[in-house]
Amino acid sequence: MRLHHSPTSPFVRKCLVCAHELGLFAWLTLVPAVAHPVQGDARLAELNPLGKIPILETEADGVLYDSRVICEYLDTLAGGGRLLPAPGPARWPVRVDEALGDGILDAAVLNRYETAVRPEKLRWAEWSAGQMAKVGAALATLERRAPALAGRLDVGTIAIGCALGYLDFRYAPLGWRSAHPRLAAWFATLEARPSMLATRPPAGA
Amino acid sequence: MRLHHSPTSPFVRKCLVCAHELGLFAWLTLVPAVAHPVQGDARLAELNPLGKIPILETEADGVLYDSRVICEYLDTLAGGGRLLPAPGPARWPVRVDEALGDGILDAAVLNRYETAVRPEKLRWAEWSAGQMAKVGAALATLERRAPALAGRLDVGTIAIGCALGYLDFRYAPLGWRSAHPRLAAWFATLEARPSMLATRPPAGA
Repeated sequence: MRLHHSPTSPFVRKCLVCAHELGLFAWLTLVPAVAHPVQGDARLAELNPLGKIPILETEADGVLYDSRVICEYLDTLAGGGRLLPAPGPARWPVRVDEALGDGILDAAVLNRYETAVRPEKLRWAEWSAGQMAKVGAALATLERRAPALAGRLDVGTIAIGCALGYLDFRYAPLGWRSAHPRLAAWFATLEARPSMLATRPPAGA
Repeated sequence: MRLHHSPTSPFVRKCLVCAHELGLFAWLTLVPAVAHPVQGDARLAELNPLGKIPILETEADGVLYDSRVICEYLDTLAGGGRLLPAPGPARWPVRVDEALGDGILDAAVLNRYETAVRPEKLRWAEWSAGQMAKVGAALATLERRAPALAGRLDVGTIAIGCALGYLDFRYAPLGWRSAHPRLAAWFATLEARPSMLATRPPAGA
């Protein structure tokens, strides 16, 4: 399978962490790609008209996107029910946590576009504040819930972990750990896993 | 179940269409809500720290978001496999089409924020062009694929239908039908369904 990939994309990272945890990483061929919100890549758009990564080209099941679809697909390939519980009471909290992790990323990435891609004179402080307020509210929720995250490894906690890793990568000055010590302790255990170590974004990118 | 709801949100509409099609609409209590990217709603944030709708409060399974999670949950409540095929070859194209419909909406909504919410002097034409290029590429892909959409009713075609409905609602001057006649013919059949008629956004909102 071919995974269109960038080492700095947190949504790609989710898929890679799942692949590592499921023992499927060796099946992936990584194809370098750059997805940009303004300068579209025609080659990516042939596979996904939205021009976004990750994209997984499979032998049997066509071209798959986005990260949620790919993570579920990988779990199914590995037998199912390993990182995503079968439909039933255990599934929904995992799905909601995945949506929460993805939502933190959506807000943090939108603010990154605002502050690093958009011309400086066109930036809107209230937009940035609105997006980062979502990130802050999500962190506060996760700090309260941190004890219940312990010991879980699923698409929900992986999405949350990739979101926290993205904050470390792009928002280091935010220093999210100081106000969220229980969440920081949980994340320290998660980010020590080989799957997370193998997929850390490059320093200085 | 309580669905936090706005009649203008296309992501809410996805959930409502699924509920209608699954015979679950009568189980929903609609709770009016307004989600805004800059002015957060503290009451919504208590349920979903991302401050976004739809949010479904359930009796047995807690608070669920986002629209993808809610649509899957409703399908499971209705017995499963009705709007979302079980894991296997039939599931992945439906999931990808759901991601495509959601992605059209993400781009169209981001451009709506750019052109209707952001102060005029801070708008960036290239951002708008980048988002609408995603919409255009997705429409071109769907026009090629329109014959294969016929007769399908699932979370994928519902997401695509809600995306096209949103273009009619917020981008009427775009006139997407003229360059996409086969897609328009497919959508004419879908939007005549009672589930779509019952969930049309209000004119002039």
